[in-house]
Amino acid sequence: MANNDAPIRVALLGAGTVGSQTARLLVEQADELEARVGRRMELVGIATLDPVEAPWIDQSIVTNDAAELATRADIVIELIGGIEPARTFILKAIDNGASVVTANKALLAKCGPEIYAAAREHGVDIYFEAAVGGAIPIVRPLRESMVGDRINRIMGIVNGTTNYILDEMTTKGLDFDEVLKAAQDAGFAEANPTADIDGFDAASKAAIMACLAFHRDVRIDDVHVEGIRNITAADIAAAKALHRVIKLLAVVKQNDKDEISAGVYPVMLPETHQLAKVGGSFNAVFVEGEASDDLMFYGRGAGGAPTASAVVGDVVTEARHRVHSTVGPDIPLYSNAPILDAADDTSSYMLRMSVFDKPGVLANAALVFAKHGVSIKTVQQVEAEGDDGTHELWVITHAVSDRQIREVVEDLEKSVNDIKSVLTVIRVFEG
Amino acid sequence: MANNDAPIRVALLGAGTVGSQTARLLVEQADELEARVGRRMELVGIATLDPVEAPWIDQSIVTNDAAELATRADIVIELIGGIEPARTFILKAIDNGASVVTANKALLAKCGPEIYAAAREHGVDIYFEAAVGGAIPIVRPLRESMVGDRINRIMGIVNGTTNYILDEMTTKGLDFDEVLKAAQDAGFAEANPTADIDGFDAASKAAIMACLAFHRDVRIDDVHVEGIRNITAADIAAAKALHRVIKLLAVVKQNDKDEISAGVYPVMLPETHQLAKVGGSFNAVFVEGEASDDLMFYGRGAGGAPTASAVVGDVVTEARHRVHSTVGPDIPLYSNAPILDAADDTSSYMLRMSVFDKPGVLANAALVFAKHGVSIKTVQQVEAEGDDGTHELWVITHAVSDRQIREVVEDLEKSVNDIKSVLTVIRVFEG
Repeated sequence: MANNDAPIRVALLGAGTVGSQTARLLVEQADELEARVGRRMELVGIATLDPVEAPWIDQSIVTNDAAELATRADIVIELIGGIEPARTFILKAIDNGASVVTANKALLAKCGPEIYAAAREHGVDIYFEAAVGGAIPIVRPLRESMVGDRINRIMGIVNGTTNYILDEMTTKGLDFDEVLKAAQDAGFAEANPTADIDGFDAASKAAIMACLAFHRDVRIDDVHVEGIRNITAADIAAAKALHRVIKLLAVVKQNDKDEISAGVYPVMLPETHQLAKVGGSFNAVFVEGEASDDLMFYGRGAGGAPTASAVVGDVVTEARHRVHSTVGPDIPLYSNAPILDAADDTSSYMLRMSVFDKPGVLANAALVFAKHGVSIKTVQQVEAEGDDGTHELWVITHAVSDRQIREVVEDLEKSVNDIKSVLTVIRVFEG
Repeated sequence: MANNDAPIRVALLGAGTVGSQTARLLVEQADELEARVGRRMELVGIATLDPVEAPWIDQSIVTNDAAELATRADIVIELIGGIEPARTFILKAIDNGASVVTANKALLAKCGPEIYAAAREHGVDIYFEAAVGGAIPIVRPLRESMVGDRINRIMGIVNGTTNYILDEMTTKGLDFDEVLKAAQDAGFAEANPTADIDGFDAASKAAIMACLAFHRDVRIDDVHVEGIRNITAADIAAAKALHRVIKLLAVVKQNDKDEISAGVYPVMLPETHQLAKVGGSFNAVFVEGEASDDLMFYGRGAGGAPTASAVVGDVVTEARHRVHSTVGPDIPLYSNAPILDAADDTSSYMLRMSVFDKPGVLANAALVFAKHGVSIKTVQQVEAEGDDGTHELWVITHAVSDRQIREVVEDLEKSVNDIKSVLTVIRVFEG
């Protein structure tokens, strides 16, 4: 730890969009931040393999030796991303007595609990506000503000690309492929969009939130993942007809038997729900606490400056700790609550089916649901749009397990002659 | 400070709705909280002048001597409210080396800076998450998560009663008095509703948020306050016609000349704004950061259990500090930024006028605006509803000072024969 009056040494690993903006805030607001911390912070090095040019970047502190830089700072900011070498650099920094600020969701979702434990053992801090929801303060509220409460469920819109795509489909009636292509052309979506649209990015954030909410070791492999690739304009139209919207949610919950589940999947939400109103590429995290009731945190989930604001908030928090020779809260993962198999997780579902216009189709379908113990909440027959003699049957079930609903779908498609196909199976949340 | 293995002693001053729920959470969740803190917390006393009965309250620790209780705890929870004797008890606790958790917005808005300084001098913590926005984590995000950013403006719906009243007026077309009476009959509004509807409750929260956001000593007396008593059903209908809603907002802002202003007043917001969607008695705080961009925090602003969840979150945070012999961040109020007189604060305004149906009325009115240097953004003439030969003129101005708009109104009412009266003057925010 630094001497009493020596500046607090800050090292920045990674100088991409977020890294460059982080450097900017640290340099341009140095005086203001000094007043808030009570001591000067000095950016002692920026490690990057690519050249980085910006008016606020002092080239004399740029290095390509991140491992060495990680050993000569009080606070190490890791913005490299990915598992290795980021993991090694972070553990080296901790081993060396530095505290770490990171935005690395993939690493924390895979190795978070080891890193949290290493920080605790070495009496240093690990902060990662920017790893979930970008600029949105959600990690600190979960770690500290809500630590006196029992959290029942968190639903997060934590991926801006997919929210943008679904929002465009909803407001413009476009199909998935069209919107994706337009988003890629405009630079809103990656050329390889898999991490976003197949839900993997959101799944990392789900794992991190589950650890914090339930005080249990939950990893990315515990998260059940479904993306939005199969959502069609017709699904969106059906949702609209039912006064609902489709959102890709990261859902972590603990039921009344204290069983935990974590998943990422599209959900039909009532259009009056606060999350339904989150448009464009904004993110929002909706938290249901036993005592606190419903809370929502809304803001920019990505972008250089917004994400950097969360990083610098963590850096200042840690710098204050250094000034007072104190540490922040650790992340105790003491719970042994069981994690449910995805197949055992329960939800209400909507099935959208293409059926032939014959008498008895509804009765036959209903028999299949009954056979698997699935209770039906509502049924709606919808006029055909095409001219092959089919129309649509929309069924919304009461809460059933994922396994049950899959059995129902299999049976419906195999055994009922008057059902042409099951078009969509999607979870329905009432709130 | 307690010994290494001795329980952390918690004293509760006040046992009203929030106090009783705080005791419940501390007692019923004692095992879970112990796991999170790493040591047992013991509720050593509950000070109240009224008898309090609940299954979770151990009568043997109930006392009427709050001053004495405040001296024998590691953490003192102050839920008495009001200025005195709460202030004396808090300072006594701090003087005695205890950290303090309070929900007392009135006290902090009046004496916060002295209390923060006392805590700093004695090396103890003062936490008050529940003082603004009840269950909503907003104090900690402002103190810590956003501490690396420059905050430009905060707009808060921080009073549930007034939001409920305005929401009922908006959704049901009712007039203010009807809704207030219904709310009082249903127990949602106080028999003496002044603190809520005249904006004083929100003003306390504005002062607290301004300190945290701008690192400056801002007090309740610095807050300009207007309530919602004069908002009519016709105002709400006019807002609706303009695709806007009327909300009572606590607004604290720092302009690009670094001048600060703090106020509570009704504002017309676009109906697409996130704050416009906050219904019923919910609260929400919308924060505009330079780097973070827009953030919103939403949840229950009042109620026993929700508010208690925030109190207990603070208690657990502080208990963790005690376990590790550390302290949390202090509240440095180093800024000397000027605080604007309310008259010099600027906004766009809407004026709703009753005018006689004569040629030249618009031209005459426009001359008055021009005379005072007030530039008009839009004008709309609206068909009369009554039959006294009047119709309505709706004028929305560009940004002007409060002083200017008052001069315009005075002149309009005095000097223009064809204007019957200025019905409403209300601020308009575009976002």
